[in-house]
Amino acid sequence: MPTPFTFINAAMSIDGKISTRQRRQVRISGDVDFERMDELRASSDAVMVGIGTVLADDPSLTVKSDEKRAKRLANGLDENPVRIVVDSKARIPTDADIFRKGAGKIIIAVSESAAFDRVESLRKKAMVIMIGGDQVDLPELLSILDEMGIHRLMIEGGASLNWGLVKNGLVDEIYSFIGNLIIGGATAPTLIDGDGFGEADMPVCSLIGAEKMEEGVLLKWKLKNA
Amino acid sequence: MPTPFTFINAAMSIDGKISTRQRRQVRISGDVDFERMDELRASSDAVMVGIGTVLADDPSLTVKSDEKRAKRLANGLDENPVRIVVDSKARIPTDADIFRKGAGKIIIAVSESAAFDRVESLRKKAMVIMIGGDQVDLPELLSILDEMGIHRLMIEGGASLNWGLVKNGLVDEIYSFIGNLIIGGATAPTLIDGDGFGEADMPVCSLIGAEKMEEGVLLKWKLKNA
Repeated sequence: MPTPFTFINAAMSIDGKISTRQRRQVRISGDVDFERMDELRASSDAVMVGIGTVLADDPSLTVKSDEKRAKRLANGLDENPVRIVVDSKARIPTDADIFRKGAGKIIIAVSESAAFDRVESLRKKAMVIMIGGDQVDLPELLSILDEMGIHRLMIEGGASLNWGLVKNGLVDEIYSFIGNLIIGGATAPTLIDGDGFGEADMPVCSLIGAEKMEEGVLLKWKLKNA
Repeated sequence: MPTPFTFINAAMSIDGKISTRQRRQVRISGDVDFERMDELRASSDAVMVGIGTVLADDPSLTVKSDEKRAKRLANGLDENPVRIVVDSKARIPTDADIFRKGAGKIIIAVSESAAFDRVESLRKKAMVIMIGGDQVDLPELLSILDEMGIHRLMIEGGASLNWGLVKNGLVDEIYSFIGNLIIGGATAPTLIDGDGFGEADMPVCSLIGAEKMEEGVLLKWKLKNA
């Protein structure tokens, strides 16, 4: 089944961490990277995060530039790309910023293990897609999104969602900005967490871009299995 | 107290891992990087690893190139740099490759918490430096090494030793090759593990080198606090 062109965009420390072990967001990159991220959002059909990222950072996932939003409107699009949260147990608070800020469609993807009343209250706030038994079935979800016309999907983390998508061969490209900080920590979230791959099944990538940016480096990788 | 010029050299995956969660070594880089690593060893006064790396990989830490070893001899040096293991509890097996392969001095740094008989049997194999109560006191150790004439110290991991050294402000530069693999895993060792820094005390670095090499990128960072 066709799935969208899917890319992960993330900023990490020298040692591969995307936040502290307390899950505190760290400003790893500066204005240039922020602008680049905003352009990626504005040019995507949808932006997706995992529930861990919502609970830790409460992002609105909106396009920040007035100009870019106006351009989307001029092109007959919503101001913001579709904003999607993968939230197997429907844990997202109904007052999360994503519900309070910005115009456009919101999708909460839940599994059959989500509590009925939680799902019902989310239905008042967003489109709810229930897919998968204990956890959201990511291949099915991406296939549904593609059928809905979402052909360019931006993933903004976190470590567990990134893992789930990469493990299922659903990621086409990874853009990682490596900033000039050391975060450290055996339990701090990294770019890709989860169970991890064994020696025989590690995805191999091609480096399709490497450029200095601000105080760090922006690397672009293409997954060979995708 | 003066300490040696100290640099970490490591190869990591796209997501910052230096081995799998099973601590299995992964070939992240190829022959060009191997040659570069060998030259770094040959040009250092000493090479240091943590006991975790010895137990997982059993490295000999010798200079592999005949030419480079001959050049060291011609310069009045031992064939290999001093090989140092930080091993607080003196857990290194007496038949480790480091004892069996290659000529040159070996130092095992232990703490006062190491068992007496273990230390005694190591004394037959290597120079033992006992420094620190429960764990090896790294600032003291590096100061002793500097007094011994070790002014250029290469660190070859792992994640815990890297953390201990960076935390204590003992690292001058970090050379990280980022290969084209995804390892993943919330518990896989990363470039720098340990407790991790808080938001207020993260070391800031300067990017002093970034070049494509083989299928990846070699980044060189200088620590600003060093």
